[in-house]
This record gives sequence, structure tokens and C-alpha cells, in this order.
Amino acid sequence: MNTADLGLPVAVPSTALFTDQYELTMLQAALRSGTAERRSVFEVFTRRLPEGRRYGVVAGTGRVLDAVENFRFDETILGFLRERAILDEPTLRWLADFRFRGDIWGYPEGEVYFPGSPIMRVEGTFAEAVLLETVILSILNHDSAVAAAASRMSVAAGDRPLMEMGARRTHELSAVAASRAAYVGGFHTTSDLAAGFRYHIPTVGTSAHAFTLLHDTERDAFTAQVDSLGSGTTLLVDTFDVTEAVRTAVEVAGPGLGAVRIDSGDLLLIAHRVRQQLDELGATKTRIVVTSDLDEYAIASLAAAPVDAYGVGTQLVTGSGHPTCSMVYKLVARADSEEPGTPLRPVAKKSMGAKTSLGGRKWAARRLDEDGVAVAEVIGTGPVPAELADQQLSVPLVSAGEVVAREPLDAARARHIAARARLPLSATQLSRGEPVLATEYV
Amino acid sequence: MNTADLGLPVAVPSTALFTDQYELTMLQAALRSGTAERRSVFEVFTRRLPEGRRYGVVAGTGRVLDAVENFRFDETILGFLRERAILDEPTLRWLADFRFRGDIWGYPEGEVYFPGSPIMRVEGTFAEAVLLETVILSILNHDSAVAAAASRMSVAAGDRPLMEMGARRTHELSAVAASRAAYVGGFHTTSDLAAGFRYHIPTVGTSAHAFTLLHDTERDAFTAQVDSLGSGTTLLVDTFDVTEAVRTAVEVAGPGLGAVRIDSGDLLLIAHRVRQQLDELGATKTRIVVTSDLDEYAIASLAAAPVDAYGVGTQLVTGSGHPTCSMVYKLVARADSEEPGTPLRPVAKKSMGAKTSLGGRKWAARRLDEDGVAVAEVIGTGPVPAELADQQLSVPLVSAGEVVAREPLDAARARHIAARARLPLSATQLSRGEPVLATEYV
Repeated sequence: MNTADLGLPVAVPSTALFTDQYELTMLQAALRSGTAERRSVFEVFTRRLPEGRRYGVVAGTGRVLDAVENFRFDETILGFLRERAILDEPTLRWLADFRFRGDIWGYPEGEVYFPGSPIMRVEGTFAEAVLLETVILSILNHDSAVAAAASRMSVAAGDRPLMEMGARRTHELSAVAASRAAYVGGFHTTSDLAAGFRYHIPTVGTSAHAFTLLHDTERDAFTAQVDSLGSGTTLLVDTFDVTEAVRTAVEVAGPGLGAVRIDSGDLLLIAHRVRQQLDELGATKTRIVVTSDLDEYAIASLAAAPVDAYGVGTQLVTGSGHPTCSMVYKLVARADSEEPGTPLRPVAKKSMGAKTSLGGRKWAARRLDEDGVAVAEVIGTGPVPAELADQQLSVPLVSAGEVVAREPLDAARARHIAARARLPLSATQLSRGEPVLATEYV
Repeated sequence: MNTADLGLPVAVPSTALFTDQYELTMLQAALRSGTAERRSVFEVFTRRLPEGRRYGVVAGTGRVLDAVENFRFDETILGFLRERAILDEPTLRWLADFRFRGDIWGYPEGEVYFPGSPIMRVEGTFAEAVLLETVILSILNHDSAVAAAASRMSVAAGDRPLMEMGARRTHELSAVAASRAAYVGGFHTTSDLAAGFRYHIPTVGTSAHAFTLLHDTERDAFTAQVDSLGSGTTLLVDTFDVTEAVRTAVEVAGPGLGAVRIDSGDLLLIAHRVRQQLDELGATKTRIVVTSDLDEYAIASLAAAPVDAYGVGTQLVTGSGHPTCSMVYKLVARADSEEPGTPLRPVAKKSMGAKTSLGGRKWAARRLDEDGVAVAEVIGTGPVPAELADQQLSVPLVSAGEVVAREPLDAARARHIAARARLPLSATQLSRGEPVLATEYV
């Protein structure tokens, strides 16, 4: 059986082809020039946050671990590379035995990050570390973009639950990763069944306008839904006239109706009217769910409205204006020879900006003030100052090729909420601003 | 073996879970209310193009066909739905036997579209048609967004080849679909090996800055690369000093050097200097490839520069500012009873805008002037006027559950280029503007 038999829209039998061709051609040339086994350190970082954003959110780390573990070149893949004449036979033989045996350190998932933060560090031979560039960046750039948007929405929503509903607005498998990242960023549920299946995120959903239109009357539709899903269901009340729909909804379901959903119009105004009507009808516990083109600003603008939950789609899965991060994967140090034990030498592209061109393997720590509030992101290449030793950010993720940092998604979500809470208060302003922590290089 | 064994980052054993939960709860309620078998017509359309865009590009159609064919509920999926108590037993039994047996019509892949264009039409029972909403929208919204950006870039690039290099900026499987969509929109090659594997798109790539930094000198790196990949390779010349690198490159590879790549700096200025230097060195056939944060505007601004090929990443895979389309999937007609042969009645949500609320099954045609230039997108629900009969846009894609419109990707690519060429000249202006064809409803 192969993945095509399983009906997967993309038949790729491992993660090894989520790779830009140049990684393999560099491998081939390095094998030939006798540099492939030079000990190397690559780091993932971003030179800046998306414009106006005050912090970034690391997400996708758990998916990176899966991807690294399954980065293998099987016969099908080797056959493809051979047939296309992309690589020579010595390189294909090398790949046949390949599995990553190096070390990966990184910010744990859910942690916040700033310009220059060494979000992930991959150490091994050049050969093994260079191969992981694209798949690591794909995952972190996508997932972190969604998590950052989710985090802002979660700040805006306060205690009200957030439902991820964006699957239809993004690639069908992006959608699954987006649900996961949204959960890390503070969302509570998803409409996407594949995300529920794969990541055990609670799923939600009851009906769309099509269900009302399928029936001869709105009352018929509501009756059908309540008969099937119970009076605790959420009825969609904006297909025709909202006031009439709310009246019908409570007549059909009784005052124990779970919720009504409003998907269009002036949500602030309509929510107030609907709340009043529900209360007058005795449906004082019936919740109001809104789901129309929301982003963090729209959510914030509804803070004073009687809204009980938000469903967010497009703006979440597209990162609320920033659908990708600008994380890069750069060689920062390498040995001068393939001889084991050769010391590492810092390297950097010359044309990069002053601060961010810092070569060398980096540590990072978050300096806190006496109240435990973060005051700076401190990055260095030398010894870690004693006073920062306990505040280091990177943890071992992969040691000698073995994944050592698996954790439940709830751990990443809790970590994010805790890390965000330790930032200065201005971190959670939605307005555009500078990164809330300055990056200090020591 | 399951997909997790295959190392796929998302273990979903069919396309059936790329579905929002409400589609299944609607199914359950409709089965119970005796409306599930009502003949129904759903249409995919968009109320507007992304702001300033003059035309849209249909992409993903071929992937939709795969997804529909593989939309099955196996024991694993049914077990998940049962365990989560999402559905009742009669609905689970119904799903166990499910496969789509209806009809799908649509604009063929690569065709252009405008506001209101009925891009895809799904006909069948409500039960079978409602289930496909999310997966169809995911695919079309994502792929069409990338194809639209690709098409604009392809216009800007003229005859110069375009290389897709955005995998690292988007979800790893989005990236594969993005390469495919970019190809439909006019790109020529991709750096993404998975896209080469899955869709047979030609792949490209030679080396990154890390390869130069791995070696003790730039000359060592160039020598290693030329030794391994031949003098026809592309050498990356902006790690340190471009002028020195170009000199070294030609010394190492000889005047037959394939190409140099510039990935930073003022590309217009540098390209002119590098061209002059290459010519002076006798490397008159050596090509210049540029790859630094390009979008359609940057490509256009290099039209007069001696550039031979463009590599595009971030802005391509994120739709150049519009990472998703706003396509929706709406019930537009349905029968009043489950009785076969019951006539269809147009339906529409009341709160939608005047024009786009048009219920009923639609045809679409593109009216041409006497020179064969498109002048209007004509959409109607009644009989097709005789003069438009030959200019209809929709074709059968699935008939009675069988896919009838498989085609090579090159066919979609050729169709797009031909369809774009029939638009008024202003279609290919990059500046913001109105849709280049008005939509007429008859």
C-alpha cells in the first residue's frame, strides 16, 4: 500500500522530499569535496517580527520532531532522484542509509520569541544538518504565523472561547496544522475533523445556511436540527430575519436552547438585540456565538457585546495579515576539517546586517525583573552569565538522533499562556508597535 | 500500515476528514428529517476578487477530483466519529457506504474567473453534496490564490523563466500544491522535490550560502560545486563580495559557466554590473538568476535589467498579499421532496447582496467581440442564448460519481495562458483596478 492508495492528496512516502533540491546538490558536492562531514551548526531565527507585532509565538516544534524522525530516503524516493538525474550514485547510496543522528535544541513550543532569538539549533555534520532546512522552515514559518495570530485573538477574546473555523480558507493539510497552532496560541476548539482526529483537539459544528434552505421553512429546519442534535445545539439565525429566527428557535428548542449563531451583519448591534430578545423569551442561558469575518480587532470591538464565543476562519489561518514568518536557517559555525573534535569556527554571510550577522553557536535567556516580568531577550555566544543560567530558553529536542522532547499539545498551550503572561503589559496591546522586548547581544 | 507509519506529518487515511463537523451534523439531522435525499445543487463562486485584482485563476480542479474520489469513511474514521460521539449510529452506517455518486461541473483548471462566476457546481442529494463543502473550498481557495499571484508574476516576467522557491515559507504540503498552482499560472520549474515527485514539475536548485560558508574559501566552494555539478551549474555570488565572486566563478568554471545567482542587494544595479563583468570575462552566455524577495512588481521593475530568470518564494506561496480567495459553497437550488424527479427550486440566503444572491442552477459564458477578445462574463439561470451556446465555460468534471475530466497539468497551464491572452489588454496591468470583465446576469 502506498499513500496514493490511502487517498491522500499528496502521495509523498516520507518527509524527505519536503526539501529544496539545492540541499541535495550541496550534499553531493560536499561529499565529493571532502567537507560533508565537517561538524556544523545551523540556527533558525528571524531578523524581524512582522510589522507592528510585539512578540512572536514558536509553534510547530512537535511537528518538526515528527518530520525529522521520518526523514528517510526509501527506494521510491531514491528511484525518483535517480530517474530525474538529480544526484549521482555515491550520493544516492549515502542517502539510502541516512537518518539524522545529530542534536537539535530549541525554544520549546508555545514560547514567545523576538528578533534574533535562536528558535532552533541543529548540530551535526554539514551533510545531515543541511538536509533539514526546508522542512523545518516550512513547519515553523507556517505554524508560528498562525499561532501568533491566534495568540492576539486569544488576548482580545479574554475568557470567551475561540473556535477555529478556517479550514475552507487554506490548503486542506495546512488547515490541520493551523488548528493545531491555533490551539497552542490559545484557541479552544476546531471545526476541522482532521485536526480532531490527528491532534485530539475538541471539534465543534452544527449547521450552515444550506440546512435552513434545504427545508421548506426555517421552523422545519430548526425542528429537524433539535430533533437530531438536542436542544443544547446551536441554531443559525441569520438566514432570513434574525428576530423571527430567534423567536422560532426558542419556540422549537425551548428556553434551554444551547446557543444561537450570527454569521453576518453588524454583530455588535445584533448581539445586543438578540440577547435582549433571548432574555425576554426566558432563554437567559442561551449563548450567542458570532462567526463573521472576525479578526483580533473585530473580537476586541465586541468585548462589551453580549457575545459568548467567537468562531474565526480566514484571518486566523492566514496569520491575520502575516501568513508566514521570515524565519531563516543559517550556518553559523562549522569545523575546518572532517576530523572529529575539530573546534567550530563562527561563520556568517557578509552582507547581512550588523547584529543579526552574529556567527557562532548561541544561547538565549530571558532576563526578568524582580517581579518576574521579562525585560530583555539576551543572546550570546560565549559563556552564559551566572545570573542568566536559570533563565535559558533552549531545551534539548533531539539528542544523537533520538527525539527527547515529546509532549502533549496542552503543554505547549499552557506554556504559551504562561510565557505571554510574563511579558510586559504592552505585549498584549493589539495596536502596532515595536517588539516588546529588546534583543541584547552579549 | 497506516499513514503514520509512512511518516506523513498528518495521518489522515482519506480525504473524508478534511471536513467541518457541521457538514456531518447537518447530514445526521437531514437523514432524520427526511430531507437528506432531496436533490440539491451547490455552487462555488466568489462575490468579489481580491482588492485591485483584474481577474482570478481557477486552480486546484484536478486536486478536487482526487479528493472527491477518495472521500470515503473507513473503519478508522468511523471509529473516531463514534468515539467522539459526533454522530449517531444510523448516520455512521450511512457514511460507511458513502461514495459521491452525483455530478460536478466546473470551469476547467487554468480558466480565468470573475465575481459571480460559477466556478464549480455540485449536484446530487443534499446528503452527498453537503459533505464536500470544506474539502472543495480548501483546495480551490488555496490553489487559486497562488495561481493568481503566479499569473501576474508570469505576465511581469514575459519570456523569462520563473522558478517557484517558496516551500520554506508555507506548510510543507501547501508548498506542493503551491508549486502545482504556480505551474498552472505560468511558472516553469520548482525547487520543491515533493512537487517534482508528485506532479512531475521540473525541479531546480544548486547551492545556498551555507555551501560557501562550509568551505575555507569561496574558491574552494565554487571548485567543489563545479567538480560535482559541472560548469553548467549556477553559482551563488553574493556571500561576500559580488565582483570578486563573479571573477572567481568564471576562473573556476570557465566562460561556459551556466549561471550566477544574486540573492540580495539592489538587483537592478547589481545585475547590470554583473552582466558587464561577465561579458568582459568572455562569459557572454552565462545567465543571471535573481532570487531576493521578489513579487510581480519587483519582477516588472527588472524588465530592463539583464536578468535571465527569476526565483520567487514568499510572495508566490502567500498569494502576493492575498493568500486565500473568498470562494464560498452555497446551496442554490433543491427539490421540495425526496421523490426522484421533483423539480428544483432556487434558494438563497436573504441577507446576501442583490446580484450575487441569485438562486438557481447557473450557466456561464464568456462573450467575445469580433476579434475574439472577451467582453463580458455572462451568467444566467434560464436557457442559454443561442449566440453564447459555443462560449460556455463549464465542463463536466464528475458524472454519476465517475471522474471524467482528468488531464495533464500542462493542459491546465496552456489553457490559462490562452484564456489570459483572450482578455482585454488591461487585464495584465499590475496596477490595482476593477475586474477586467463585468459580470452580466441574464
